[in-house]
Amino acid sequence: MPVVTITRRLRFNAAHRIHNPALSDDENARLYGKCNNPNWHGHNYLLDVSVTGEVDPRTGYVIDLGDVRDIVTREVIDKLDHRNLNLDVDFLRGINPTSENLVVAIWRVIAPLITPARLTRLRLWETEHNFVDYDGNT
Amino acid sequence: MPVVTITRRLRFNAAHRIHNPALSDDENARLYGKCNNPNWHGHNYLLDVSVTGEVDPRTGYVIDLGDVRDIVTREVIDKLDHRNLNLDVDFLRGINPTSENLVVAIWRVIAPLITPARLTRLRLWETEHNFVDYDGNT
Amino acid sequence: MPVVTITRRLRFNAAHRIHNPALSDDENARLYGKCNNPNWHGHNYLLDVSVTGEVDPRTGYVIDLGDVRDIVTREVIDKLDHRNLNLDVDFLRGINPTSENLVVAIWRVIAPLITPARLTRLRLWETEHNFVDYDGNT
Amino acid sequence: MPVVTITRRLRFNAAHRIHNPALSDDENARLYGKCNNPNWHGHNYLLDVSVTGEVDPRTGYVIDLGDVRDIVTREVIDKLDHRNLNLDVDFLRGINPTSENLVVAIWRVIAPLITPARLTRLRLWETEHNFVDYDGNT
Amino acid sequence: MPVVTITRRLRFNAAHRIHNPALSDDENARLYGKCNNPNWHGHNYLLDVSVTGEVDPRTGYVIDLGDVRDIVTREVIDKLDHRNLNLDVDFLRGINPTSENLVVAIWRVIAPLITPARLTRLRLWETEHNFVDYDGNT
Amino acid sequence: MPVVTITRRLRFNAAHRIHNPALSDDENARLYGKCNNPNWHGHNYLLDVSVTGEVDPRTGYVIDLGDVRDIVTREVIDKLDHRNLNLDVDFLRGINPTSENLVVAIWRVIAPLITPARLTRLRLWETEHNFVDYDGNT
Repeated sequence: MPVVTITRRLRFNAAHRIHNPALSDDENARLYGKCNNPNWHGHNYLLDVSVTGEVDPRTGYVIDLGDVRDIVTREVIDKLDHRNLNLDVDFLRGINPTSENLVVAIWRVIAPLITPARLTRLRLWETEHNFVDYDGNT
Repeated sequence: MPVVTITRRLRFNAAHRIHNPALSDDENARLYGKCNNPNWHGHNYLLDVSVTGEVDPRTGYVIDLGDVRDIVTREVIDKLDHRNLNLDVDFLRGINPTSENLVVAIWRVIAPLITPARLTRLRLWETEHNFVDYDGNT
Repeated sequence: MPVVTITRRLRFNAAHRIHNPALSDDENARLYGKCNNPNWHGHNYLLDVSVTGEVDPRTGYVIDLGDVRDIVTREVIDKLDHRNLNLDVDFLRGINPTSENLVVAIWRVIAPLITPARLTRLRLWETEHNFVDYDGNT
Repeated sequence: MPVVTITRRLRFNAAHRIHNPALSDDENARLYGKCNNPNWHGHNYLLDVSVTGEVDPRTGYVIDLGDVRDIVTREVIDKLDHRNLNLDVDFLRGINPTSENLVVAIWRVIAPLITPARLTRLRLWETEHNFVDYDGNT
Repeated sequence: MPVVTITRRLRFNAAHRIHNPALSDDENARLYGKCNNPNWHGHNYLLDVSVTGEVDPRTGYVIDLGDVRDIVTREVIDKLDHRNLNLDVDFLRGINPTSENLVVAIWRVIAPLITPARLTRLRLWETEHNFVDYDGNT
Repeated sequence: MPVVTITRRLRFNAAHRIHNPALSDDENARLYGKCNNPNWHGHNYLLDVSVTGEVDPRTGYVIDLGDVRDIVTREVIDKLDHRNLNLDVDFLRGINPTSENLVVAIWRVIAPLITPARLTRLRLWETEHNFVDYDGNT
């Protein structure tokens, strides 16, 4: 059977601050500049969720995209949208919300829930000009 | 001479909370829902600045767009980008940062500085799905 | 009070055929070419709904955009999305679904429901390369 | 010689219905929901065709993109654009037109015609929010 | 009859240099900066052509958009695409190709040809971040 | 540590002509058609720069994207923006500026400067409808 990757785009709008509490305020300011603003800033994030598997000859689907949308909405989007990524999100507790750390944390939430097709890539857009990709590699 | 309108798009990423301090917390929560989150949320805003005037036969310009960019960057973008719209911005002091209130406040800052061509419209995109237009009418 | 226009973008995916049943098949084929295909074709439509009014000093809103979204979704989007515009839609009965006729028909459904702010423009995108605007003028 | 991948985007607007005739109407309705509407719905599809090969030192091209455009237009776009994917297309006869099945069917048409550079990926966007990728793997 | 505006987007890729031959080289350099590079630079332009009129009750069209596309392609796009705007274009002879001058020159070519519906706006995008609008006003 | 790829989009507007001086004018015209116009044409290019590495547990970054932006702006964008790719650019001397040749030449400039994370892909968009990818393979 052909192996196809299917991708669903979802969105969330959130506040955050890039800050590592293990470092001094000076060190944080030096490392992160205006992204370290203690009063927060925010973004309209886009999250592209890619799932790979054989096409089921009965349904013509790798996976029902509605199921992907529902899982990611319930486990990720509803927890991030209109929230503060440093303060409000259980699965981000203690995590400095850089794009890199966000995409890895989201992967760990979603990957076990996608089955039997496999989550193969997350792309997280922070702005129109930058995004991160994660495929589970360590 | 032909009258042309020229538009420059600029961007800023900011945190905010829709909240009217003159109302009770319950009233704010009822009116604004998740946009009232006390821990803030944020957006990638786009601001389209439109200036109208006769085309100068010497320069072929209504106005030098670099001047528009510099004025708006200095007076607006640098004050809003990576900031908290409720806490950090002098010209938003005491203003509930809905898109409507933001676009009017930005107009009041920029309009007097654009001359002899006139500022004729501001469009502020909060997300890919909603924007506000203001042309100075009251 | 400042008068602001606020716009909400919504989407629907539909099949249609450009066809005037008052004309012969030859005439329809000549007028509409491939858009007249009797087996239908389809589009991802975008609908931009613009509402104008004074900014309410208590809420900072012209109108609650959530209300606009709910009205337009219930009265228009839910009836058009994943439907056949020639066959499935009560408010399009007997209407040849050109973009021009669609935008006028949608206006007639929505305009009476937006109050006290006023519906001032509908923009309907049929593809990335063409759209129609209607502001209620006759 | 450097190995480069070059991609050309093309478009088609089509009607379809997700439906497996081997299943009962109830089963189809349960599996596909509103996508199973017997009166069809439709989309503006984007097709990104990626071709990989060594850069020819004489032309500076992997392949003449005009040739890619002409082949894909003649063999795929002209057959799909303003058509019904369930009824009108020879190479989709008997195929349930999910995005997964479409991208595999298009691959089988195009892949043998691209030479000596190789077709290495097709990306088919059904809406702005979902797309499928196929690279020929089985 | 309802009055609707319909817009068609077209594209051209061109080289140009902002330069007023009536001024000295120093003055040109001072006014136009890097846009004055004597070796040219270039853009992917988008041109949005808006035509307004009553909807024809027989066709459901303001105007056949295919006719708009054909007129604008023949009279404007074919003359600008893959050309040098300072050197290659009959209707730009002697015109300093700022966006303002371009949009006015294009208007003068197209406006007399659109009938009985009227050309009501041209929007010319030079980049994703700036565009000019012209509606024939002087 | 997780391995993440981070991408930064940058832009430049340039003139060029596809032309191989080792071939006759007739051969160039035949091979490249309107892209061979001796008076040049131009594009708004987008360059997506992708860098891969382990996430640094101290910073939460693969690499500081501001550093990527600064390096690519200084070494590539400032040399290409508002320039003629055939005439003005030191690192393109003697290179026929097809997209394929451009992306390889840009790679050779940037790749040695990105460290310790590695440059893993360049995507160069020439228009909205075509782009090239290079990952350093030969």
